[in-house]
Amino acid sequence: MSLLQQIQNGDDLKAFSRDELPILANEIRERIISVVSKTGGHLASSLGAVELTLAIHYVFNLPVDSLIWDVGHQAYAHKLLTGRDKEFDTLRSYKGISGFTKISENPCDAFTVGHASTSISAGLGIASAKHLKQDRSKVISVIGDGSLTAGLAYEGLNQAGDSDRDLIVILNDNDMSISPNVGAISSFLSRKLSAHSLQSMRKEFGVFLKSLPGIGDDVYKLAKRSEDSFKTFVTPGMLFEAFNFDYFGPIDGHRLNHLIDILENIKKHDEPVLLHVITTKGKGYPPAEKNPVYYHGVGAFDVETGGSPPQKETPAPNNKIPSYTQVFGSTMMDIAAMDERVVAITAAMPEGTGLKGFSEKFPHRFFDVGIAEQHAVTFAGGMASRGMRPVVAIYSTFMQRAYDQILHDVCIDSHPVIFALDRGGIVGEDGPTHHGLFDYAFLRNIPNMTIMAPRDENELGIMLRTAVNHDGPIALRYPRGPGEGVDIIKDAPILDIGKGECIRDGRDILILAVGRVVQEAIKAADVLEQEGHSVAVINARFIKPLDRELILETAAKTQNIVTVEEHVLDGGFGSAVLELLADNDIFHCRVRRVGIQDTFVEHGPQKILRKEYKVDAAAVISAAKELLNHG
Amino acid sequence: MSLLQQIQNGDDLKAFSRDELPILANEIRERIISVVSKTGGHLASSLGAVELTLAIHYVFNLPVDSLIWDVGHQAYAHKLLTGRDKEFDTLRSYKGISGFTKISENPCDAFTVGHASTSISAGLGIASAKHLKQDRSKVISVIGDGSLTAGLAYEGLNQAGDSDRDLIVILNDNDMSISPNVGAISSFLSRKLSAHSLQSMRKEFGVFLKSLPGIGDDVYKLAKRSEDSFKTFVTPGMLFEAFNFDYFGPIDGHRLNHLIDILENIKKHDEPVLLHVITTKGKGYPPAEKNPVYYHGVGAFDVETGGSPPQKETPAPNNKIPSYTQVFGSTMMDIAAMDERVVAITAAMPEGTGLKGFSEKFPHRFFDVGIAEQHAVTFAGGMASRGMRPVVAIYSTFMQRAYDQILHDVCIDSHPVIFALDRGGIVGEDGPTHHGLFDYAFLRNIPNMTIMAPRDENELGIMLRTAVNHDGPIALRYPRGPGEGVDIIKDAPILDIGKGECIRDGRDILILAVGRVVQEAIKAADVLEQEGHSVAVINARFIKPLDRELILETAAKTQNIVTVEEHVLDGGFGSAVLELLADNDIFHCRVRRVGIQDTFVEHGPQKILRKEYKVDAAAVISAAKELLNHG
Repeated sequence: MSLLQQIQNGDDLKAFSRDELPILANEIRERIISVVSKTGGHLASSLGAVELTLAIHYVFNLPVDSLIWDVGHQAYAHKLLTGRDKEFDTLRSYKGISGFTKISENPCDAFTVGHASTSISAGLGIASAKHLKQDRSKVISVIGDGSLTAGLAYEGLNQAGDSDRDLIVILNDNDMSISPNVGAISSFLSRKLSAHSLQSMRKEFGVFLKSLPGIGDDVYKLAKRSEDSFKTFVTPGMLFEAFNFDYFGPIDGHRLNHLIDILENIKKHDEPVLLHVITTKGKGYPPAEKNPVYYHGVGAFDVETGGSPPQKETPAPNNKIPSYTQVFGSTMMDIAAMDERVVAITAAMPEGTGLKGFSEKFPHRFFDVGIAEQHAVTFAGGMASRGMRPVVAIYSTFMQRAYDQILHDVCIDSHPVIFALDRGGIVGEDGPTHHGLFDYAFLRNIPNMTIMAPRDENELGIMLRTAVNHDGPIALRYPRGPGEGVDIIKDAPILDIGKGECIRDGRDILILAVGRVVQEAIKAADVLEQEGHSVAVINARFIKPLDRELILETAAKTQNIVTVEEHVLDGGFGSAVLELLADNDIFHCRVRRVGIQDTFVEHGPQKILRKEYKVDAAAVISAAKELLNHG
Repeated sequence: MSLLQQIQNGDDLKAFSRDELPILANEIRERIISVVSKTGGHLASSLGAVELTLAIHYVFNLPVDSLIWDVGHQAYAHKLLTGRDKEFDTLRSYKGISGFTKISENPCDAFTVGHASTSISAGLGIASAKHLKQDRSKVISVIGDGSLTAGLAYEGLNQAGDSDRDLIVILNDNDMSISPNVGAISSFLSRKLSAHSLQSMRKEFGVFLKSLPGIGDDVYKLAKRSEDSFKTFVTPGMLFEAFNFDYFGPIDGHRLNHLIDILENIKKHDEPVLLHVITTKGKGYPPAEKNPVYYHGVGAFDVETGGSPPQKETPAPNNKIPSYTQVFGSTMMDIAAMDERVVAITAAMPEGTGLKGFSEKFPHRFFDVGIAEQHAVTFAGGMASRGMRPVVAIYSTFMQRAYDQILHDVCIDSHPVIFALDRGGIVGEDGPTHHGLFDYAFLRNIPNMTIMAPRDENELGIMLRTAVNHDGPIALRYPRGPGEGVDIIKDAPILDIGKGECIRDGRDILILAVGRVVQEAIKAADVLEQEGHSVAVINARFIKPLDRELILETAAKTQNIVTVEEHVLDGGFGSAVLELLADNDIFHCRVRRVGIQDTFVEHGPQKILRKEYKVDAAAVISAAKELLNHG
């Protein structure tokens, strides 16, 4: 029986001697690599945090003490140490354990996470609640250096530093977000200072190290500020000291003994403290150390060969069919070559959004702003106000962070900013925090906004070219994964704004779909026609403005309408269609809306989820039959 | 003719000698005080920025150089200097000039603003566009210290510091947001260092000031870092140096000559630079200097007496009728006295949200987190996860900043957080950036969310007590201004979730309203009944979940439905009603939705706007008659 298999909780772990922990660390790494090579997952971040996780669990008492992981994609070792070793094989599988921490999954998951930079805020909330209840247990928030590019982290630091709450923030600094980190803070954090140079500077200035009782490590002595005002000017600590945190570090995040000693000491603190830990993303698996961007979130891979991974931008199972992401990336390059106004903006996702090629071809027209969606949008508004055509490529789920900026800094003045919302709809294994199921609803209430969704990868290219030629804010939303395998016609004419496509005409029922699910609508129509029904299918193309003329004309000919969207039903596309019908006194039609019911969608393969949550052809057929049988 | 009257643009200003500028500053102050005492407006911030504005306009060349004010409420002097002196009497009046900067109003308003902390991001966007177009003109972003509590500002600093863009950020530090500033950064910024102490410390450490050629001011010499690593550890500069900005300051923001000298020097810079300017909020008008919180945003006042202003929380024109805000504040105190779980969170708005009394009575259960709506919500999620019942009181318009946090950090786990959305609907003179017209739409697409809106101040109290007893996320949205003058019944039973109120029954038409406009619906029904129609009126109370039973039963009895909401129509309450009707095959009814059409609402008095944008009783009557005449 391995050491890992003997651990169900923190007490089991604490029963081991310190000498045994490195063996355990190896077992954990092997287990993570073995499972993720089959299930896919966030490999590199989790490998980097193994020792840190062990040290935290060794020193603190979970779940009485609260541990909040930021994003949660580095928490695989944490899962293995909290009774989830057996289930770990089901990682990210449908009905299996989540790739992130989740309150409902385990009492040691103190907060449900998925988007970056919430751990300080949530941790401070938990610490404040504990304080009011006179609960003296500890709160530890772990945050990556990448997450420090998001403003939310500073908002949390600002309040935490001013409070006297007992909050331990651990900065897990691997010099990466998903991609190499960007921004001033990143270069600032990496101004590492060796103990030696600190010593010699101290001598030079005639300042002497105060002795600190009760601390057993030289490096730790140096790391702990002895002269506030002296040390801060040479180490990254000055940033956190500005926020009134006691700063410790930077220390090596893979030296277990050292980590445990320092955490034992920090545990005695009862004020806001920040421990700066340096880790290596991908630690212990050479291919991942070598290429941490690829192994950040990876599909199944061969553990032995490891190296020379396929390009991140080529996730299509059938290599001949490019992904929507790839078509977006290549179209961006075509457009930019012809239109100097076009620039691309991404929030820490140059690979994921398919813009890597663009960034290499047009380095001066490419802006990676860090995990800073709010800023990305306002920055784009500024550029557009001066004649540029910024394309802001951010996954649908992350664009939720910038709702106010879209409304204010782009739409009030109708600046021509293009929002490229990749990963719209069901994304799959990343689960409820990552599905892009709310964008139609949160965008369509904004005046001056235009919203499109392509039925296939060819239409994506056309829509992107349409967007760049539109004099106002415009969003296009497309799914994760391979395209539909259609031909891409590069010189197809651009679209008229607000004009849909009548795919087929019919009398018995009208199926109105938008986005990828147009394919599901067509499949459903085929089945229904085989059964003798006359079925009209419209590809709406635009969620806003709707094609008033086409929809009303077609609706006038039928008594049954089914709307289809891969989106929540509340306030979505179908809801917009109902508004159009009501406003025009079309009230002779029964309408069924196919889409996601009012619930959060779990993780699992896209295909299974589409079936389970009823946004596939079968769901369309079922809705249509309900109407047809009724009539 | 005053000096001010001679100025239409920057050239006119530059024609004056430096000696004349203080006279001009006085004229500007008098003009601002005179007008704002009649129109109301953001007095204190604008008075504090008079010299800074003059210096910027004197040194830079607008609109070729771009000046971005953060929030824009301190830009009255800027308006007076850019050809808007004559129109200034119409400040904040319907069809008059805006209280904020606005691209459509004047070419010298480089960006439209209203919410805090966008100026660095927008400025960097403008600077980046200029850079790509090889336009060498300057970009100046002014930001207040209050706005530095918002994460967006850091996201901007992080990218700007890492770029080599030519961006001047001026930190206008008056130690206030609307209320006294909070958080670690605030106390940090006020660590002012006198020239004397800097001198003596330099001597002590044996570091000598390098001579800096071409700079004509001793204090400036000291302010400019000569030894990076030395100065940063004693002044607020270290924070901005961490972001790779060249830091100058702090300097006195009311010494015109000094300001002009420094700006002339900074103008030669072509890298990111931050100038830290200390100003006094309310400068030059003693009552405002004494009570800057009250005079931040003030109604009409008597210039002579000035002092002893009425309480901010008593804006009701009829003193006997409390405002919705006041009822919220007093109910919070009642509830908190009985329920230890209840805590209050505000984002820099203790007065505006009516929580000042609460903060005094329950200081340990009150959290002002700064202008940090994202953090406020995640922090609340953390507290709620540990058994508290946080009430997050944020104006509807500002809650737009926290959409993602509401969705993720509260709703996924259904944490019992109460969202108190004050200033829902049309707010009046603050205009398009401040109307709370999108909240039903952006909240109702989120699973697990419950949304209420009270018909009057009594129902507000009942709903707040209902919310605190609800085991999940719940929002209540109420308007700015006085209540309806109804009795407040403190021991009224709490509501059943999702149950509306049938106000009257009828056959010809059903009016379905929610929120304050229930009053408009009743008025409309009175008129319609006088004309012989039988009118049903339902107070829906809940936008989500709707009262399915009540609405369907009542709809079954009529053929005409009018929905009423003070909210945009796209995705709003009426849209939810259409969904309910369609899902239940109620398709015998014509429906008209009364609400705001798909446009941004300008500024002006609430009553005028409600009439112009058709959300009053007249609009309900008109919609009803359209249906009745049709039938």
